[in-house]
Amino acid sequence: MSVNWNTHFSTMARERLHSSLIAEMIRLVVEHKAISFTAGEPSAELFPLEELSTSVLKAFKDPALFSYYPHNEGLLELREWIAAWMHADGLLPKWVTAENVLLTNGSQEGISLAAEALIDEGDCIALESPTYPEAILTFVKQGARFAPVAVDKDGILPTSLEDVLNQNRVKFLYTIVSFQNPTGCTTSTERRRKVLELCRKFDVIILEDDPYHHLRYEGKAPASYLSLAGDDARVLYLGSFSKIVAPGVRCGWTVAPSEVISKLAFLRVANEISLPAAIQYALFDFLKNRSLDTHLGRLQDAYRTRRNALVSALERHVVPLGLSFDVPEGGLFLWGRIPGLEDMVRFARFAVEAEKIGIIPGTIFFPEKGEGLDTIRFSFAKVTPEMAEEGALRLARALRTFTPGEA
Amino acid sequence: MSVNWNTHFSTMARERLHSSLIAEMIRLVVEHKAISFTAGEPSAELFPLEELSTSVLKAFKDPALFSYYPHNEGLLELREWIAAWMHADGLLPKWVTAENVLLTNGSQEGISLAAEALIDEGDCIALESPTYPEAILTFVKQGARFAPVAVDKDGILPTSLEDVLNQNRVKFLYTIVSFQNPTGCTTSTERRRKVLELCRKFDVIILEDDPYHHLRYEGKAPASYLSLAGDDARVLYLGSFSKIVAPGVRCGWTVAPSEVISKLAFLRVANEISLPAAIQYALFDFLKNRSLDTHLGRLQDAYRTRRNALVSALERHVVPLGLSFDVPEGGLFLWGRIPGLEDMVRFARFAVEAEKIGIIPGTIFFPEKGEGLDTIRFSFAKVTPEMAEEGALRLARALRTFTPGEA
Repeated sequence: MSVNWNTHFSTMARERLHSSLIAEMIRLVVEHKAISFTAGEPSAELFPLEELSTSVLKAFKDPALFSYYPHNEGLLELREWIAAWMHADGLLPKWVTAENVLLTNGSQEGISLAAEALIDEGDCIALESPTYPEAILTFVKQGARFAPVAVDKDGILPTSLEDVLNQNRVKFLYTIVSFQNPTGCTTSTERRRKVLELCRKFDVIILEDDPYHHLRYEGKAPASYLSLAGDDARVLYLGSFSKIVAPGVRCGWTVAPSEVISKLAFLRVANEISLPAAIQYALFDFLKNRSLDTHLGRLQDAYRTRRNALVSALERHVVPLGLSFDVPEGGLFLWGRIPGLEDMVRFARFAVEAEKIGIIPGTIFFPEKGEGLDTIRFSFAKVTPEMAEEGALRLARALRTFTPGEA
Repeated sequence: MSVNWNTHFSTMARERLHSSLIAEMIRLVVEHKAISFTAGEPSAELFPLEELSTSVLKAFKDPALFSYYPHNEGLLELREWIAAWMHADGLLPKWVTAENVLLTNGSQEGISLAAEALIDEGDCIALESPTYPEAILTFVKQGARFAPVAVDKDGILPTSLEDVLNQNRVKFLYTIVSFQNPTGCTTSTERRRKVLELCRKFDVIILEDDPYHHLRYEGKAPASYLSLAGDDARVLYLGSFSKIVAPGVRCGWTVAPSEVISKLAFLRVANEISLPAAIQYALFDFLKNRSLDTHLGRLQDAYRTRRNALVSALERHVVPLGLSFDVPEGGLFLWGRIPGLEDMVRFARFAVEAEKIGIIPGTIFFPEKGEGLDTIRFSFAKVTPEMAEEGALRLARALRTFTPGEA
C-alpha cells in the first residue's frame, strides 16, 4: 500500500485514541478459558428477548418506522414513555416533557453528543477519579483536559470539587451518580445538594450519568441532580436500557433543556441522521405492555444474590491476604484495594495466565496515569455463586504465588 | 431557566450547524397536503419488511447479539457477505476481505467517521458542486473549508479538479460516483482514471460515496475508484442498504485499508460503542436467504417506471416554460434548471403554498452560498405516474403565476 496514512489522519485519529486494557483482559480471559470477574455488561440469560421479539414483530409491520423521517430525536412514543416513567420515579423537575428527551445509541452516544456540544479543544472537564474509561476516551477525543475530583464510599467529595473549581475554569462536571463505575459508590443527596450549589456558583454544567439507577438491591435512591436543580436547568441526565434490558438494543436517552436537545439532535444528524426506530418501537411496546417492575425485580434478585456470593467468597479467601473493599447497595461492581501490591496490571496478567482468573486492574479508570496502582475492579454481573467461590480461591492462589517486582 | 447556554456551547455547536431547508420544505409539503417531488428516500411499499421480519425473529433468539462484544466493527457474517458480494460485482481490489469492511449507521456514519479520522480544523476538502447537503454539514462540523469541483452530465470534471488541487492543499476528495445527489450524473470510467491519477499525484484521499449504485435502470456501471486504485489503496468506499432495503435499518458500510478501519472503529467506540447487531443479523439473514437480484430487479422496474413518467410529464408541461434537465440512468433524482428564475427558494415556497406542489430548490446543494439560484431537484422515488402528471401540471401553473422579484 503506497499511502502513508499517518500523514493523512487528523490529530484526533492520530493522538487522542488510547487502546483499552479491558479489551486485552477480556481477550486473555477467553484465551485461557478463565473464570471472569471482568464483565462490564449484564448477564445474557436475564435479557427479556422472548417478550422483545413479540414486540419487534409489530415494528416490522410498520413501514413508517423504516423511513428517514420523522425520527431524528427518536421515536416519540418511547420519549413520552420515558418522561412519564421518570416523572413517576421522582427523577424529573416539572418542566420536563417528551420534548426534553433525546433517544441515543446507548448512553455512550449521550456522553459523546454532550462532549461535542460543550467541549472546545483545551477545555477542562471535572470528573471523578476513578471513572468510566470510555467517557475519558470520548472527552480526550474532543480535546478536553481533566481536573480529577476525589470520591469515597458516599460518592463525590464536595470539598475536592470546590478546590477543583477554584483552580480551574471547568466546562462541566461528569459524574456517575449511582453505583459508580468502577467504585460502586452512590453520591448521597446531601452531597448532591452541595455539589449543585458549587456548580451554580461557578456556572458549571452537570453531566449526570445514571445507567445503574435501577440496579439497586437495598436502600433508597437519592434525589437526582436533575430534579434537585429544578428550574436552574444546568443538568444533562443520561439514562440507559443497556443494563436493565440489554446492551444490544443500543438505546439510552438524554434529558436536557429543549435548546440543548435541539443541538444534540442536530449534531446527530451530522453524525448518522437517526437511529433504528424499529428497535425503539420494540422497546416501547415491551415497556408499555408488561410490568417493568417485575422485570427489574427479577434482575435485582439475581444480581443481589451474585453480589452477596462474591462478597462472601472474597471475604473468606482474599480479604485475609490484604484485600479491602466496600459493599455497594447496587450496580455490578466491587472496588477493591490490595495495599502493597503496586503493579496491578502485571498482577492481572499473571492471575489470568497462571490461575485462570480474570480481573480488571483499577489503573485504567483513572484520568491520570500512575494512580490506583493497588486497586482492582470485580464485576459480579456474570458470576454465579459457584464461580465466585472458585474464582476467589484462584485469586488467593495467584496472590500467594505472585512475585511483585519481578521482570 | 437561568443558564445561558450560548456561553457553554462549543464552537461546533454554536457556529457549525446550519439548519436544513429540506426539513422546511418537507414540513410545508405535509402542512399543505401537497404532491411532493421532494423525497430523498426510497418508497416505503418497496421495503422487504415481511422477509426481514422472519429474519429479525431469528436474531431475537440469540442473546449473543445483545451483548456489547464482539461487534465493534459490526457483525462479522454481514461484513463477510458484503465483501463477497462486492467482489462478485467487480467493485473491489484483491486485498479486500471482511477485515476491511466496517458496518456503519447508514453511510452518513461512514462520512462522519471519515471526517473525524481525516479532518483537522481548517483543512480543505474537495467536493462536487453541487453535492449532498448532509455531507457538507458533517465536514463543516469538523471545521473543514471547501474547494468546489465542477460537474457535468458525465460527472466530475478532471480539469476542474486539477485547478483545485493546484491551488489548494486538499485533504480528500468527496465524490458521489453514481447518480449523484442532486445532479443524477455518473462519473465515467475514463474520468475516474484521470481523477485517480490526479489524486495519486497530489497524494489526495478519495471518499467514494456510492449509495445509489444498485439503482441503475439501464446502461453499465463504470469501474469503482476502489478497484481502479488497486494496491494504491487511497480510497474509502461508502455503501448503504438505505436505498435498496430501507433507510430505517440504518445500515451502511465503509471499505478501507485495515489501518483506516481500525481508526474508524475506535472513533466509533468513543461515539457510541457499537451498533445493534440484531438488525445487522436480520439483514444478513435476509440477504443470504433470498435472491437479492430479484429484489433489486423489482426496485429497478418500479423506479424506472417512475423516472420515465416524471420525465415525460415534465417534458410535456414544464419544459415548454423553460425547464431543462438531463435524464439519468438511475438513482432517484432529476436535476433541472429554469434560466431566468433567479430565486428558487422563494419560488419553492410559493409553489407549495399556492399550488400544493413540493420541490427542493437547488441552492441548498452548493457548498458556497449564492450558487445555483435557478436550479431545482426533483425526486421521483415516491411519485406514481398519476402524481407525476398532476404535479407537473401544478408546477406549470405555479411558474405561470409566480412573480419574480416580488417582496
